[in-house]
Amino acid sequence: MTVHERAFSRMGAQLTGSAIRQMGILAAGRPDLISFAPGYPDPDTFAWDAYRDIADDLLRAREADLLQYGPTRGYAPLLEALVPRLRRQGVACTTDDLLLTTGSQQALDLVTRLFVDPGDVVLVELPTFTGAIAAFRSAGARLVGVRQEADGLDLAHLDEVLAVERATGARVKFLYVIPNFQNPTGGLLSLAKRRALLDWSRRADVLLVEDDPYGDLWFPDVTRAEDTRPIKADDDEGQVVYLQSTSKTLAPALRTAWVVAPPAVIERLDVAKQSADLCSSTLDQRLVLEAITRGVLDAQLPRLRETYAHKRDVMAGALARECTGLASWAPPRGGFFLWVQLPEGLDTRAMLPAAVEANVIYVAGAPFFVDGSGHHALRLAFCAASVSRIEDGIARLAGVIRTAAASGRPVPPAGP
Amino acid sequence: MTVHERAFSRMGAQLTGSAIRQMGILAAGRPDLISFAPGYPDPDTFAWDAYRDIADDLLRAREADLLQYGPTRGYAPLLEALVPRLRRQGVACTTDDLLLTTGSQQALDLVTRLFVDPGDVVLVELPTFTGAIAAFRSAGARLVGVRQEADGLDLAHLDEVLAVERATGARVKFLYVIPNFQNPTGGLLSLAKRRALLDWSRRADVLLVEDDPYGDLWFPDVTRAEDTRPIKADDDEGQVVYLQSTSKTLAPALRTAWVVAPPAVIERLDVAKQSADLCSSTLDQRLVLEAITRGVLDAQLPRLRETYAHKRDVMAGALARECTGLASWAPPRGGFFLWVQLPEGLDTRAMLPAAVEANVIYVAGAPFFVDGSGHHALRLAFCAASVSRIEDGIARLAGVIRTAAASGRPVPPAGP
Repeated sequence: MTVHERAFSRMGAQLTGSAIRQMGILAAGRPDLISFAPGYPDPDTFAWDAYRDIADDLLRAREADLLQYGPTRGYAPLLEALVPRLRRQGVACTTDDLLLTTGSQQALDLVTRLFVDPGDVVLVELPTFTGAIAAFRSAGARLVGVRQEADGLDLAHLDEVLAVERATGARVKFLYVIPNFQNPTGGLLSLAKRRALLDWSRRADVLLVEDDPYGDLWFPDVTRAEDTRPIKADDDEGQVVYLQSTSKTLAPALRTAWVVAPPAVIERLDVAKQSADLCSSTLDQRLVLEAITRGVLDAQLPRLRETYAHKRDVMAGALARECTGLASWAPPRGGFFLWVQLPEGLDTRAMLPAAVEANVIYVAGAPFFVDGSGHHALRLAFCAASVSRIEDGIARLAGVIRTAAASGRPVPPAGP
Repeated sequence: MTVHERAFSRMGAQLTGSAIRQMGILAAGRPDLISFAPGYPDPDTFAWDAYRDIADDLLRAREADLLQYGPTRGYAPLLEALVPRLRRQGVACTTDDLLLTTGSQQALDLVTRLFVDPGDVVLVELPTFTGAIAAFRSAGARLVGVRQEADGLDLAHLDEVLAVERATGARVKFLYVIPNFQNPTGGLLSLAKRRALLDWSRRADVLLVEDDPYGDLWFPDVTRAEDTRPIKADDDEGQVVYLQSTSKTLAPALRTAWVVAPPAVIERLDVAKQSADLCSSTLDQRLVLEAITRGVLDAQLPRLRETYAHKRDVMAGALARECTGLASWAPPRGGFFLWVQLPEGLDTRAMLPAAVEANVIYVAGAPFFVDGSGHHALRLAFCAASVSRIEDGIARLAGVIRTAAASGRPVPPAGP
């Protein structure tokens, strides 16, 4: 045992990597591999020329602040530019309610540190985003899952779970939800359930952490902007900590996201961020601000909706051709992900080596579930791959599933 | 009490802001104020034209990776480019020993989480960097201070402190040191003490966390590159976790720093970073890589050494003119900071409102000390202000000190 091994903290000794990131590493070594694993935006949608113009203008102006340390809270004009955008989505706020973060992942990390002591309970959807699970666990949270229905969280199960936890004396700190095009299911929480959740939050005296990276990416054929109304928009009492990001709309590289919460929360997140990374990239924040003020972001959104809706169609079409009778799925109304259920008895994690062999990968379902279930589900991201690769990849995947199903015990598959 | 106030974690409820960041906020509102508070590099030294060319080339090339999520560990070609640079400084490593971080502040945060459980002891210099104090405390570390002498850490006191802590059964996790142009004292740890510290680390079975943001900024009139040799360079047994940054040499905005440590440590830091912010800004990393490969960084260094050595001369000269008999200081051999001792009985924190009134600020000494001392010291950063403002600012500061000394009890000042 080395000096560092002896010195690890309890958390440090337990660290294990993310299933999604591990898939990314796998993919990097195989250029022919078609990856449906990470939720990477399509790089063809990036506003390359706009960023080139913006970077040139900014660096030409030589304003000292551009390359200097910035305020921990975020570059003030960017915060100011976010206020009217949030208002248009129904979220009334001022810059006092805002904190910039290095991607939403940092927001999850800071929010968790602010609220969670080891042993505290965080409620999450079954399934939910693995990055959130990792952030919650790294603060020592005990995660308790709530089932989902076709229109989102099962409210009866939520009440049940809360009662059980409260009966054991657990401190339930918050419920983490992704109402819009959930990761990994792609599901959309109904407006009625959003209102009900806010009521529940008040009644139960439990905060909501509402993560909304995909809200702008609704598919016009089946969804309206109003269907994505943030829960935060109806939150008059500060029950909701709301997270937005530019990673799926502008570019993930720019690591620019923000938290909307009451000032008492924001002030403490600011202090927590001081010790986490002092400030986010100033240059990235300036690029994002210019992309907003020059109309790049607004011009981008209809194009993104169209691009991803089309890719969803392509993937759903390929699945219908290749996997009918072999798997079930519900094409999402927005976002990046298509959630696939295989017959019970198949294990999508065990299937991965065969998938890699066939040059296609996905993320296995189990890591998204905090209750140990999900073994026969998998997440397909249709965002990054090209249309022709989506079709090829689904054909390869169908072969892998067929082989696994044939070699396993014969379980009747669910319908499409 | 609101729902969030009821929900705060123990850490969350205790959060308080950084003294340096608070000074920054104060300064932002007063354009005439001369700030010696934050350690901001001189923006005139930024390689504006080079970044403009680089950004233009990168964005023109439209390589998808540039704006995409990147590996948590860092952009591989950047890690590869760091290896020969580190070797030239005596630090033998491969990319397996490297992790990119969002500034060194994130490295401090991740290293702390990896090693520190609440109640564990971290040893720090008296005084030390407030950002490190904040990161250590946010993980619940108990901080114990070790005195410094003119050539750095007092090794006898270090032994004494360790013996006292071990006698109480404390788990001492690491010693945090800034050997080169320490923050806040500007001090340089002697080469003999570096070797002795490494021996101590092995003997005591306590890790060293060596933070080296200023190592490249040695002043040629009084210092040679060899004087800044990292402790890590002689570490054959993985005792040292070594931190470097581009914030003081290229630009703080780019938030690009790295950790050098044994692979077993790096692998776990990688996992911790996945949940902290997934990855650092990809664009920033690419700008830094190009600045290295195109020779921008190497061209920059001699110019920076000259610029900051000159500013040190200007500030030391102004202090000699204005403050002889009123304060004592030792001009540093590199870096950004000049550490000033006022007569005992003066309180530099209490003096701050008068300083702001006189349109000059500094950072009071006390927040740098974990043992409650340092009330009559202050840190002056000579890096950011122009030469003429340094001279004006010191004249203003001298007036503030004189008034405070005249109104306080008469204590004989230490010599210059």
